[in-house]
Amino acid sequence: MTDKPHRRRNLLTNEWVLVSPHRAARPWQGAVETINEAPLPHHDPDCYLCPGNARSASARNPNYADTFVFPNDFPALLGEGGPTREDPFFQSQPATGEARVVCYSPDHAATFATLSPEAARQVVQTWCHHSAELGQRWAHVQIFENKGAAMGCSSPHPHGQIWASDFVPTLAAREDAAQRERPNLLADYAEAELKSGERVVESNDHWLIVVPWWAGWPFETLVIARDPAARLEDLSATAREALADILLRLTKRYDALFATSFPYSMGWHGAPHEFIDIQHWRLHAHFYPPLLRSATVRKFMVGFELLAEAQRDLTPEQAAQRLRAAL
Amino acid sequence: MTDKPHRRRNLLTNEWVLVSPHRAARPWQGAVETINEAPLPHHDPDCYLCPGNARSASARNPNYADTFVFPNDFPALLGEGGPTREDPFFQSQPATGEARVVCYSPDHAATFATLSPEAARQVVQTWCHHSAELGQRWAHVQIFENKGAAMGCSSPHPHGQIWASDFVPTLAAREDAAQRERPNLLADYAEAELKSGERVVESNDHWLIVVPWWAGWPFETLVIARDPAARLEDLSATAREALADILLRLTKRYDALFATSFPYSMGWHGAPHEFIDIQHWRLHAHFYPPLLRSATVRKFMVGFELLAEAQRDLTPEQAAQRLRAAL
Ligand SMILES: O=P(O)(O)O[C@H]1O[C@H](CO)[C@@H](O)[C@H](O)[C@H]1O
Ligand SMILES: O=P(O)(O)O[C@H]1O[C@H](CO)[C@@H](O)[C@H](O)[C@H]1O
Repeated sequence: MTDKPHRRRNLLTNEWVLVSPHRAARPWQGAVETINEAPLPHHDPDCYLCPGNARSASARNPNYADTFVFPNDFPALLGEGGPTREDPFFQSQPATGEARVVCYSPDHAATFATLSPEAARQVVQTWCHHSAELGQRWAHVQIFENKGAAMGCSSPHPHGQIWASDFVPTLAAREDAAQRERPNLLADYAEAELKSGERVVESNDHWLIVVPWWAGWPFETLVIARDPAARLEDLSATAREALADILLRLTKRYDALFATSFPYSMGWHGAPHEFIDIQHWRLHAHFYPPLLRSATVRKFMVGFELLAEAQRDLTPEQAAQRLRAAL
Repeated sequence: MTDKPHRRRNLLTNEWVLVSPHRAARPWQGAVETINEAPLPHHDPDCYLCPGNARSASARNPNYADTFVFPNDFPALLGEGGPTREDPFFQSQPATGEARVVCYSPDHAATFATLSPEAARQVVQTWCHHSAELGQRWAHVQIFENKGAAMGCSSPHPHGQIWASDFVPTLAAREDAAQRERPNLLADYAEAELKSGERVVESNDHWLIVVPWWAGWPFETLVIARDPAARLEDLSATAREALADILLRLTKRYDALFATSFPYSMGWHGAPHEFIDIQHWRLHAHFYPPLLRSATVRKFMVGFELLAEAQRDLTPEQAAQRLRAAL
């Protein structure tokens, strides 16, 4: 669109992001990520997620053959919460919830991108099932995956997490407000992106994947349901199949981009289960991958970004173009 | 305060943070930071910030003897910005500005914590001077430092940055709104923190440093001006001296905590220069250090944090207690 610095507006959060395309040319003398290119075994006796292994002093994994879900042994949320404090300065409220771990596959060496279509469909089904099940008793169900050591993942075994909470988290509340104010926001946005084509990475009858106009991370993508679904469990059987398919395509593109197993945090935003009136919500997922230039040079969201606003060094159009060309 | 999960409210951003104190006990098998404990030379011929060295094809540093400020050779903001676009989905505005680099010392091996009191005072004076000078023609002046490779810093030479912009960045605007809505917010908060004492790390006649009630990063601190100053340039001569002194104490505590040169991003929030009416603003600085358990184990702000809300594994009271005990 332009090679001059500008700011773009994020319609889901109402925040701005600073785009400085010319800056991609600067030399980099900072930290480089270490990558472990040694092939992983299909079963690692020391992995606490592999089938049959001991997970802790008191728990052992079954010999599972496809996806496997268990309660997180170190959950951030418990059945009991701290006190409510109403004070002009020191405000707190109890937080309760449940945390689960979702193993995508018994194969220690797999990643989402290398799953068979059938296994990928099982992951999608598992997400849908647990969203519905936990949503019956919690205000919000946050499904996410941290992939790769660069994104704080503590085990290479392919897995994601689910944190269900009795509160609607800050960012879910912000996205709720934006969509409530402007019903049909993401459906209309998807139409506009399809029409433009510039930022489209993948699409099929049920899904659209773009590098959003307002992307903060270099190769950030937004996965939008084209059918009017507010939550994962609202998806039809064909939309679920189409989702597994398009996510395989996306993650393969990511891996191809820098010829590395691409790190990211990803997660789903469906209507918080606390809300009854959810017409304004459109189900979507965000992928936030840190890599910028190569398998070892990442974007740091630090000083200016933590204190002022997100800043990026290539345009979303350039990122989309590179992702399209990667496969 | 409590060892059960709870949420605390950030009065400057109106966001919540999830506190899960019991979770500090979980084992860590993820990424560990590499630390370079080899002593640095006082002058590095390959450093583009050292006195007398070539910075680029066209620029060479003078033989500076104290602080040294020069225009960033790879600025994110330029004199010319991209186009304005008013569109229901694709909104943009030009962004212009100026970026400067502030070398704290000619000594390549120094950090803020190891500066002499006189050199620390010079850094403070330099911040004040450039805030005033750039504030005459820009809407906002963001002064910050990324310290350490873990925080995206590309050179160990002690330095910070200044990005001045023709717009008020997202987070400055949010803090402005919170203070406008509740005038005297930070002054009253500082009083309440002094009275409680639980989260106080350092204080003197002009400054208070706390691990704020709502800290997201494990050892995050907030440096609050106790005099009614809205911007750095409003500080009296004694407040500037007291600032240099208290920042030396804080950074030495940080270094002592895990016996390492402590990484962080820090930066100043003063009233954006675009605003005339600034009675409601109180000058303050944020320190965001990533380390959690040791010199090599950090907190990752990833999946849940990027998609839902900030989450921490020890209470702010525990963090303050440990910082108080560190020296
Ligand atoms: O300008 P530097 O030091 O090269 O770059 C560093 O600080 C910038 C401002 O916070 C960030 O945008 C970069 O990601 C980071 O690596
Ligand atoms: O739960 P894990 O995988 O041990 O931990 C990882 O994900 C969590 C949720 O995003 C983060 O709070 C942790 O910082 C990160 O290391």
